[in-house]
Amino acid sequence: VLLCAMDVCLIQTLILFCSLICCFWADTPSNKSTPNIIIILMDDMGWGDLGVFGQPSKETPNLDSMAAQGMLFPNFYTANPLCSPSRASLLTGRLPVRNGFYTTNAHARNAYTPQEIVGGISKDEILLPQVLKKKGYVSKIIGKWHLGHSAHHLPLEHGFDEWFGAPNCHFGPYNSSDRPNVPVYNNSQMVGRYYEEFGIDKKTGESNLTQIYLEEGLDFIFHQNMAQRPFFLYWAADATHAPVYASKRFLGKSQRGRYGDAVMELDYSVGQMLAWLRALGIDKDTFVFFTSDNGAAVMSGPKQSGSNGPFLCGKETTFEGGMREPAIAWWPGHIPAGTVSQQLGTVMDLFSTSLSVAGLSVPDDRLIDGLDLSPVLHNNTLINRPIFYYRGNEMMAVRVGPYKAHYWTWSNSWEEFNQGINFCPGQEVAGVTTHTQQEHTMQPLIFHLGWDPGEKYPISVVTKEYQDALSRITAVVEKHKKGLVPGVPQLNMCDMAVMNWAPPGCEKLGKCLKAPKSQPWKCDWPH
Amino acid sequence: VLLCAMDVCLIQTLILFCSLICCFWADTPSNKSTPNIIIILMDDMGWGDLGVFGQPSKETPNLDSMAAQGMLFPNFYTANPLCSPSRASLLTGRLPVRNGFYTTNAHARNAYTPQEIVGGISKDEILLPQVLKKKGYVSKIIGKWHLGHSAHHLPLEHGFDEWFGAPNCHFGPYNSSDRPNVPVYNNSQMVGRYYEEFGIDKKTGESNLTQIYLEEGLDFIFHQNMAQRPFFLYWAADATHAPVYASKRFLGKSQRGRYGDAVMELDYSVGQMLAWLRALGIDKDTFVFFTSDNGAAVMSGPKQSGSNGPFLCGKETTFEGGMREPAIAWWPGHIPAGTVSQQLGTVMDLFSTSLSVAGLSVPDDRLIDGLDLSPVLHNNTLINRPIFYYRGNEMMAVRVGPYKAHYWTWSNSWEEFNQGINFCPGQEVAGVTTHTQQEHTMQPLIFHLGWDPGEKYPISVVTKEYQDALSRITAVVEKHKKGLVPGVPQLNMCDMAVMNWAPPGCEKLGKCLKAPKSQPWKCDWPH
Repeated sequence: VLLCAMDVCLIQTLILFCSLICCFWADTPSNKSTPNIIIILMDDMGWGDLGVFGQPSKETPNLDSMAAQGMLFPNFYTANPLCSPSRASLLTGRLPVRNGFYTTNAHARNAYTPQEIVGGISKDEILLPQVLKKKGYVSKIIGKWHLGHSAHHLPLEHGFDEWFGAPNCHFGPYNSSDRPNVPVYNNSQMVGRYYEEFGIDKKTGESNLTQIYLEEGLDFIFHQNMAQRPFFLYWAADATHAPVYASKRFLGKSQRGRYGDAVMELDYSVGQMLAWLRALGIDKDTFVFFTSDNGAAVMSGPKQSGSNGPFLCGKETTFEGGMREPAIAWWPGHIPAGTVSQQLGTVMDLFSTSLSVAGLSVPDDRLIDGLDLSPVLHNNTLINRPIFYYRGNEMMAVRVGPYKAHYWTWSNSWEEFNQGINFCPGQEVAGVTTHTQQEHTMQPLIFHLGWDPGEKYPISVVTKEYQDALSRITAVVEKHKKGLVPGVPQLNMCDMAVMNWAPPGCEKLGKCLKAPKSQPWKCDWPH
Repeated sequence: VLLCAMDVCLIQTLILFCSLICCFWADTPSNKSTPNIIIILMDDMGWGDLGVFGQPSKETPNLDSMAAQGMLFPNFYTANPLCSPSRASLLTGRLPVRNGFYTTNAHARNAYTPQEIVGGISKDEILLPQVLKKKGYVSKIIGKWHLGHSAHHLPLEHGFDEWFGAPNCHFGPYNSSDRPNVPVYNNSQMVGRYYEEFGIDKKTGESNLTQIYLEEGLDFIFHQNMAQRPFFLYWAADATHAPVYASKRFLGKSQRGRYGDAVMELDYSVGQMLAWLRALGIDKDTFVFFTSDNGAAVMSGPKQSGSNGPFLCGKETTFEGGMREPAIAWWPGHIPAGTVSQQLGTVMDLFSTSLSVAGLSVPDDRLIDGLDLSPVLHNNTLINRPIFYYRGNEMMAVRVGPYKAHYWTWSNSWEEFNQGINFCPGQEVAGVTTHTQQEHTMQPLIFHLGWDPGEKYPISVVTKEYQDALSRITAVVEKHKKGLVPGVPQLNMCDMAVMNWAPPGCEKLGKCLKAPKSQPWKCDWPH
């Protein structure tokens, strides 16, 4: 591990050094048939957190530069307003309702993978690294996995060759008799736990995790390049997920407080990775995509949450603030610099597009929701396609062109709201940000997201515009529902016994905990 | 008038042509002691209307380029959340409460210059073009004046050498027995009226006014440059003020509807002006500043209003949405390209900065609120200064550093609100967006605009942060109040007799109307 012990401050020097001595392999052709692929996925970062998307602090110079050198997508979506299903969709190219990352315990509920979840990613699903393997790609995930933490759900069982990171969110610290702290893995073995070997100071917000993830990433890139192997790096840092954290050198540096500090460090890290690709002379051989897993967690605001810019509500909801994501594609010499694409895109497209970039086809034995965005990337064409907004087992809304129809609206329950949990702080649109699950299936609320991106003005049902939009959308919905075979829901059962009590490798570290007796129950998903 | 009759489509050709043949005077030194000055002022355009400030449609490529070539100000403010006082402040460098552009008819009321207003800009105020004259500047205003329409209030009486535009908003059309349509002036003579000689089709939104203003602007630049005279161009187009309009070639082109069409045409016009400066070889000799007069008129939403991005409320209010403005400074070779300044700036600074650019001092016989931003523009330094948010005769709020203290909060009255007039559509912050005038002078509401730009989370009064911020702000407020000598309020009296019945030049056109008998009353300013 060349770089692991090295301070990030030295990376800049190494980049300079390497750009001098590494030039002998900088001559690799820029039209490699198997370009490297890097997907950079943020955690709970909002559309409005980037300077280029209007964050007033303008503290993301590296991401803004990445956009200036690449293609910006203002209409890019996640597949679900919550972390686990979103990540499952990114890696399978399929909606959660197909790949099983949802619950049927109650109607329209967000479900994810806390430590007590029994399920995880099904062995029947095909993940991006599994297909990339056909062309010899080496795949690594760095950071948060979140597709289940039982042994058969872990990344190395699903196509990844390497992993450095954790299976769950970095919540804690816990009293280990009630609940174990979340383990950090290096490949198939745990190497410590959050709040133990991998510190997160919840008082000061200090943690060097992003720095570690950056070093891991640079190191992986370096070694695969040395070995002349095409690689897929899935860099899924989680510093912007509550409890937000940053390294010492970034703490207090942002105008936006600790959340902004985390953003600055992530922005810096992205800048370092792109500089590294350039220094190694493989920038023209590497397709990089930056996005986030769901909208900013505005319910954790003000100090642990990002911004969804002008959009309504945030994480957990199917309003634009919950599902519209910052997105930038970067591939010098292939993607025209400084372009903006109005293409409607989704994280599932990263599955199909990455395979296309690698010269591979998507699996033909199942429905893939992801679209190959290559024509968009190379020629800035526009492909007509809808966006589906699911919450658990319910299709809440659909976007077709500029129109978005809500078939169901819900922020969260009155019960939660009255306890101070607010999914739309400072925002309220009568009949839209409802606190009961409101059905509109007979007459959906329709918004024009061009002149009304904030979803404030439902189009009057008596207008021709409404009728035209509705008939266009209805056709899309009918087709979608006809082709929909829901997958087996994987997020229904919980059990304290399945938590990370004794992950592989715990013996060596003396960190095995005793699991309680198995007592499974149907998980309660309140929203 | 070289260009007046020419279609804007030809301008591009002329720019190319001129860039070839005009090179003989392109050799003028780039460090002229009297650089040209262009202030481009938008009408009701919001902070969030520019791509570079996060408008999802990203339809302002020229303004985004201007920012990439210049300096962007995410913390730039107007002096008042309404058009007339804002414009009076820009041209005098003084707060409305000093220059008289306010009312004392009721507490904290926004006042402007509708046709029935008796007052206007006082002869005792010194306007920017009056001072620039000392150095031989030729000054022209193109577009909306809005500082009074009685003969002695018009631009040519206050330092401008030329004028093409109108004294009031383009409301109408009116039945001329009740109310005259607003006249359009060419210098000191009217040349027609809105909805008569200068058409605005309220059904289709078509009007070629922006095109006319662009041609006037290019023509003025051309002639002053030919004559080797330094010039000040104040380009105040109003296409984004309701009723919004655009030329035929822009109608229907935006994703955002008619408002977006207007923005696209204004963006195009700015691009043409900058290209013209380059073609004439005077880009390095011309300081250009782009901003807007107040926040987007969200109460006119959805289709006649722009966007204030992540900020609270809009026009008429002293929340950020009412007073934070898009702002870009451009001066190739003088202002470093692609920079972002976190300097707190105001439209009043354009007075002081323009004078500084011209090598002139501000008047020393009165208090000037504007700051000379030259050190910011040239060296990206930061100057500590407060921002005052006035509504009529009341200081509603103050910003010092990242902190903003509200001493009074008010959106609009319950009476108006219940009639459907909403200054904060879709937004509601309990105790903040109040519908009564709420006094907080003993314990102001304080927000941190870094981590809470949307003014959603008042800082708890029991925290040290609150106390520290308050004592810092209190000192600033005390100093401000001590030095405050309110000007004579100019916007108290109304009279139907003073409307634009018979402007100079009307005889020639046969467009004089008969004024009713004078019956002055105290204007009613409802909000």
